[in-house]
Amino acid sequence: MNLILLFDEDFTRMAPDRASGRVSLVGRRREHVCSIHRAAVGDELCVGLAGGTMGYGRVVLLNDDSLELDVELDTDPPAALPVQLVLAMPRPLVLKRVLISATAMGVKKIFLIQSNRVERSFWNSKALRDGERNKPLILGLEQAKDTIVPELELRTRFRPFVEDELPAIIKGTRALVAHPETDVPCPRDLQEPVTLVMGPEGGFVPFEIEKLEAIGCSVVHLGERILRVETALPALLARLF
Amino acid sequence: MNLILLFDEDFTRMAPDRASGRVSLVGRRREHVCSIHRAAVGDELCVGLAGGTMGYGRVVLLNDDSLELDVELDTDPPAALPVQLVLAMPRPLVLKRVLISATAMGVKKIFLIQSNRVERSFWNSKALRDGERNKPLILGLEQAKDTIVPELELRTRFRPFVEDELPAIIKGTRALVAHPETDVPCPRDLQEPVTLVMGPEGGFVPFEIEKLEAIGCSVVHLGERILRVETALPALLARLF
Repeated sequence: MNLILLFDEDFTRMAPDRASGRVSLVGRRREHVCSIHRAAVGDELCVGLAGGTMGYGRVVLLNDDSLELDVELDTDPPAALPVQLVLAMPRPLVLKRVLISATAMGVKKIFLIQSNRVERSFWNSKALRDGERNKPLILGLEQAKDTIVPELELRTRFRPFVEDELPAIIKGTRALVAHPETDVPCPRDLQEPVTLVMGPEGGFVPFEIEKLEAIGCSVVHLGERILRVETALPALLARLF
Repeated sequence: MNLILLFDEDFTRMAPDRASGRVSLVGRRREHVCSIHRAAVGDELCVGLAGGTMGYGRVVLLNDDSLELDVELDTDPPAALPVQLVLAMPRPLVLKRVLISATAMGVKKIFLIQSNRVERSFWNSKALRDGERNKPLILGLEQAKDTIVPELELRTRFRPFVEDELPAIIKGTRALVAHPETDVPCPRDLQEPVTLVMGPEGGFVPFEIEKLEAIGCSVVHLGERILRVETALPALLARLF
């Protein structure tokens, strides 16, 4: 937790310009500040208001129940990556790590989609329930020092998504499908918005690749090595931007 | 497991040119072929001989105890990345994932080193014991379809390593330290060998950065976002090469 992410409901007092105030934290964030930061009254910690600005919070009270900070918020969060991610639903254990790392790298729009090689049971993952779904996104923001929570959308049917929705989503972006079976290497250092489509373990099936190409996606590879999605995603994002 | 990694002791028969033979597999590899590949007699599976060539193995016997394959090995493994990795020892849970992904991306030499912000207890990790240490390396090779097992070296003292050993290690390579506190962005698409040095969670301390700079390492950043090592490593490797 390199930044403590704050929400409106944490504030016991907030200035009308939302640039300062006092927050009271309990639970995970208080515990982290105690046990990992080993903070004391008077210390300054990096904070940010979800959806807003970042700054510092000075510890004014810290005990077994509560942490109170006087916060000053005056810095914009880091720029987002100009990318939308369309990702075949990973296994539940992998999903969390992938969402943390996509968020940490600055992805702000993520579609999780069904695909032929995605087990239907993955959609029942606890991690997708209300109240759980945002947790890895928040961990990613706290890791990278950012405040803008990514939008996460779920699409449980491949074909209607690709045929009816994806054409409008990719409009104005360079749409790339990461897939090992092509001779076209992934481009580098792009200066334009990208829609990055990634398949499941085992890859998209040929029918899915055809559907994606039919709406204007270009297939690119990242070398002959087959990478896990949690390795391939940071590699692709770092290469693209 | 996109490739079944074979070792000399798996062979019940091997041609003198080491390009064909029969192997008998038990345990994890047999189980994986049964339950994940759902292979049957006659199927061909991708195989590779550790340290050698890759090819296909045709299933000639498969039962609850044993898997036998007739293998033909005629393809070189993919090129290695021209990089040596010097990595502050990660937490045990992270170590395994980082070794898998470094190996999958083609790193062939990894030094795990002590650093000020590395807890001494990390060196007692079970994952470092004989018999365990190679497991994530093998998983990485099986994932990426490669056969060359990386060399993994442990150095439990920072200063003697950096002062006495590292100067010879970085000779003939571009030595880069990934560290957020610099204005120099990480270079892209290099055509020369690199030694990549990565700090622990929380980063190297200033004294360590000074020591690394003193022997000729250049500090570079990957943007203002602070990434976990398991995210930063694939991102750095994909950007460098």
